[in-house]
Amino acid sequence: MSTYSPPNQSDNPYIPFGDQRSAPFYNKDILSVLQFTRADLDYIFGVAHEMREMVTRVGTFDLLKGKILANLFYEPSTRTSSSFTSAMERLGGSVIPINEVHYSSVSKGESLPDTVRTLECYVDVIVLRHPEVGASALAAKYARKPVINAGDGVEEHPTQALLDLFTIVEELGKVDGLSVTMLGDLKYGRTVHSLARLLTLFDVNLKFVSPEILRMPPEIISELDQKGIPQSEHFSLEPVISETDVLYVTRVQKERFEDLSAYESVRDAFVITLQTLNKTKERMIIMHPLPRVGEISMEVDDDPRAAYFRQMEYGLYVRMALLAMVLGKA
Amino acid sequence: MSTYSPPNQSDNPYIPFGDQRSAPFYNKDILSVLQFTRADLDYIFGVAHEMREMVTRVGTFDLLKGKILANLFYEPSTRTSSSFTSAMERLGGSVIPINEVHYSSVSKGESLPDTVRTLECYVDVIVLRHPEVGASALAAKYARKPVINAGDGVEEHPTQALLDLFTIVEELGKVDGLSVTMLGDLKYGRTVHSLARLLTLFDVNLKFVSPEILRMPPEIISELDQKGIPQSEHFSLEPVISETDVLYVTRVQKERFEDLSAYESVRDAFVITLQTLNKTKERMIIMHPLPRVGEISMEVDDDPRAAYFRQMEYGLYVRMALLAMVLGKA
Amino acid sequence: MSTYSPPNQSDNPYIPFGDQRSAPFYNKDILSVLQFTRADLDYIFGVAHEMREMVTRVGTFDLLKGKILANLFYEPSTRTSSSFTSAMERLGGSVIPINEVHYSSVSKGESLPDTVRTLECYVDVIVLRHPEVGASALAAKYARKPVINAGDGVEEHPTQALLDLFTIVEELGKVDGLSVTMLGDLKYGRTVHSLARLLTLFDVNLKFVSPEILRMPPEIISELDQKGIPQSEHFSLEPVISETDVLYVTRVQKERFEDLSAYESVRDAFVITLQTLNKTKERMIIMHPLPRVGEISMEVDDDPRAAYFRQMEYGLYVRMALLAMVLGKA
Repeated sequence: MSTYSPPNQSDNPYIPFGDQRSAPFYNKDILSVLQFTRADLDYIFGVAHEMREMVTRVGTFDLLKGKILANLFYEPSTRTSSSFTSAMERLGGSVIPINEVHYSSVSKGESLPDTVRTLECYVDVIVLRHPEVGASALAAKYARKPVINAGDGVEEHPTQALLDLFTIVEELGKVDGLSVTMLGDLKYGRTVHSLARLLTLFDVNLKFVSPEILRMPPEIISELDQKGIPQSEHFSLEPVISETDVLYVTRVQKERFEDLSAYESVRDAFVITLQTLNKTKERMIIMHPLPRVGEISMEVDDDPRAAYFRQMEYGLYVRMALLAMVLGKA
Repeated sequence: MSTYSPPNQSDNPYIPFGDQRSAPFYNKDILSVLQFTRADLDYIFGVAHEMREMVTRVGTFDLLKGKILANLFYEPSTRTSSSFTSAMERLGGSVIPINEVHYSSVSKGESLPDTVRTLECYVDVIVLRHPEVGASALAAKYARKPVINAGDGVEEHPTQALLDLFTIVEELGKVDGLSVTMLGDLKYGRTVHSLARLLTLFDVNLKFVSPEILRMPPEIISELDQKGIPQSEHFSLEPVISETDVLYVTRVQKERFEDLSAYESVRDAFVITLQTLNKTKERMIIMHPLPRVGEISMEVDDDPRAAYFRQMEYGLYVRMALLAMVLGKA
Repeated sequence: MSTYSPPNQSDNPYIPFGDQRSAPFYNKDILSVLQFTRADLDYIFGVAHEMREMVTRVGTFDLLKGKILANLFYEPSTRTSSSFTSAMERLGGSVIPINEVHYSSVSKGESLPDTVRTLECYVDVIVLRHPEVGASALAAKYARKPVINAGDGVEEHPTQALLDLFTIVEELGKVDGLSVTMLGDLKYGRTVHSLARLLTLFDVNLKFVSPEILRMPPEIISELDQKGIPQSEHFSLEPVISETDVLYVTRVQKERFEDLSAYESVRDAFVITLQTLNKTKERMIIMHPLPRVGEISMEVDDDPRAAYFRQMEYGLYVRMALLAMVLGKA
């Protein structure tokens, strides 16, 4: 679908399951975190919470029986691809995985619009992962069927931002009033950019902890300022850890540093260990978009505050909700 | 199955859905366009039309529930592979995708007959794409389960030819009496060869438009002559466009030309634009096997005569029909 | 699941289908042939036999409807992967194929425990193929969901050993009292090692026929000795073929030999032809784990003693049984 219009039922965010072609998000695209109002988020998370309950109680159900999803991945992402596949299958639908687009028509020079217009002859909804910024919007412009952006380029990965936020909601019961600390590579990390933007819809306090060369980009800082979000920057976790409700950890990649010694000198300051846990609130959560490579010590995994694997599971429920919604079944 | 015998119910081409092991094509292989009589085509297109109606009305149905398809692709083809996958899933069946045969047993030196005899232990029907001429016939010789040729080498891609013809039938309501113009690379294009052969079963008029070096091969010309098909060759679309009912466009590949200037000099004569549309009948269709890379201008896409994306959709119905038929359910 | 405890219902090995969370193997891992008692095997083969009957009678059934399998393959194996996929689909379940782990998070350096803990958020059971010894045990240690070893490194491929043994049971009606001859590469062949170990639970007679440089490893010989299994070694099939009930053929790879002439001199002695059949019992079976590359002549395939393609089919039933069992449905 080429145009997005916000749902008009924001006062009544939750509607029981059923075939509701007048429902919000029916036949809409999911392209950007910027498309959502706070009422939209309430609605999405209401449906995602129902999905969680139903998976817990009965495992799967046939809400999308007979529907087919094209999982069109122009770059590999096992995690995201598996999550959407599971979401569709847990709802009784089927999936056509298209992982090797580098081998296929696409490599013969076919344009994204043509690929999408061909695929939509076979399926009911398209999930697209693409290395280029704007690819999802382009696909959605030509497709008659709904398109869900599963990450395109450095900017947008809206379902990741939604699952991050849903994790906070489910784990801590609210978002307003929380102190959210983002740690690690805040310059290149698309997940922290999207989450920060989504959090502007709430009454939160943001703290950014990063090495000097990986600070949150000034344009995002200024965007948050304009929305009136209290924020502060730090080069160490120490001053903010004790008041943090949500610690969002990302990976500091060696390759970002010009020389190895600069990397070595900061590395340990951005690793979460049992010692870090000693300084936190008793009720707080540690998140990570995964994969991690050493930035959270494995000994932390068994602590109830370690929410990163549960975060993956919340992702399943959010994607189930989105699929059901755009297909008019939620 | 190793032998093909034509259906003997040609007077009564359409039979309602149900389990009919005596039905034509039950447990038969689909290997070549040459295997079909005109009565076969009537039967196949009758079933395919039913599939179209049922998909339009209810989306999917469980005709092949519990049946499993092995999608065995020795060379990549996203379009064909996705189409068969969707066809099976829209009928309630399951698919085992085997796309990476270059990594697998096959690359350990296993023969095609052994691969097929192993796979058929797991599935009910095998769709085979292979770079070598005759691969499907070889597979069918050893398999007890039905084999469908999804393209083997330069010669045969029978389901493509069937979907091309079905497109004409559904779009124009008939084949007899039509003037069909094939444009572009007629020398190497397997789709135009197969379609031309299939059209000999009908009362049509064929026009071939190509650069000198990409003319329809003499053996096909002579084969059509023997069947009494009126045909003519041209180096430009101009003289035939106004009387054309079906314009079948294929890609003229730069690599076919010895020097770039020869290519540049002919290229524009084989590109379809809005100007081309001005010269056509009001009721005619433009087809293309896709992918296209510039040989039909995108501005043409919105015209009702542009049938190439609908053509993809007809492919789904033809493949649904074939799967249901060889599994005895249509 | 990290711990394996043997089933405690060995006196009553077969239980009709149904949801039985107290059933043996519910939520257990399948990691090694060493984990099974003879009672376990009776139980597994009882369920596998039921699966065979049900597939023969009705094709598929919905025992695992709504369940999802992650087919996590760190190295390609079309045969094993397709077999598990079919097993899950024949039981009405769904599959998430993860074949390209070299492209994915894993290649970004993610640990196997993290990959498994992420995947299990999406699925109900994990089948793992991995090039390293012990990978399955490591995965099972961290996973809450059951893990099935589909081959890890040179040692273990327990479902292959189970299907080999099940083939013998179904084809010959018993295992006790049989003379089993293993032929070919007995040094590196993981299938013959596992099968030999599993056979120590029965009253069999083992004969090993191999070139000098590919003899059964001394540690296995001694392991079998300790279990009191009668065994003998030979460099030619001639002396043992006439008394063999099960001839298990494996491939002698050229690469194992230092010089080509050594290979050439022994090769023909390890090829099964119609001449070999002339010397065997009338009721015996020839097995092979496949793929074969010349070590059994194709002319042998049509003989009823050639059991190797049926062996693939028995593999389907064993894997259906294991999936149903670990998911508490058998």
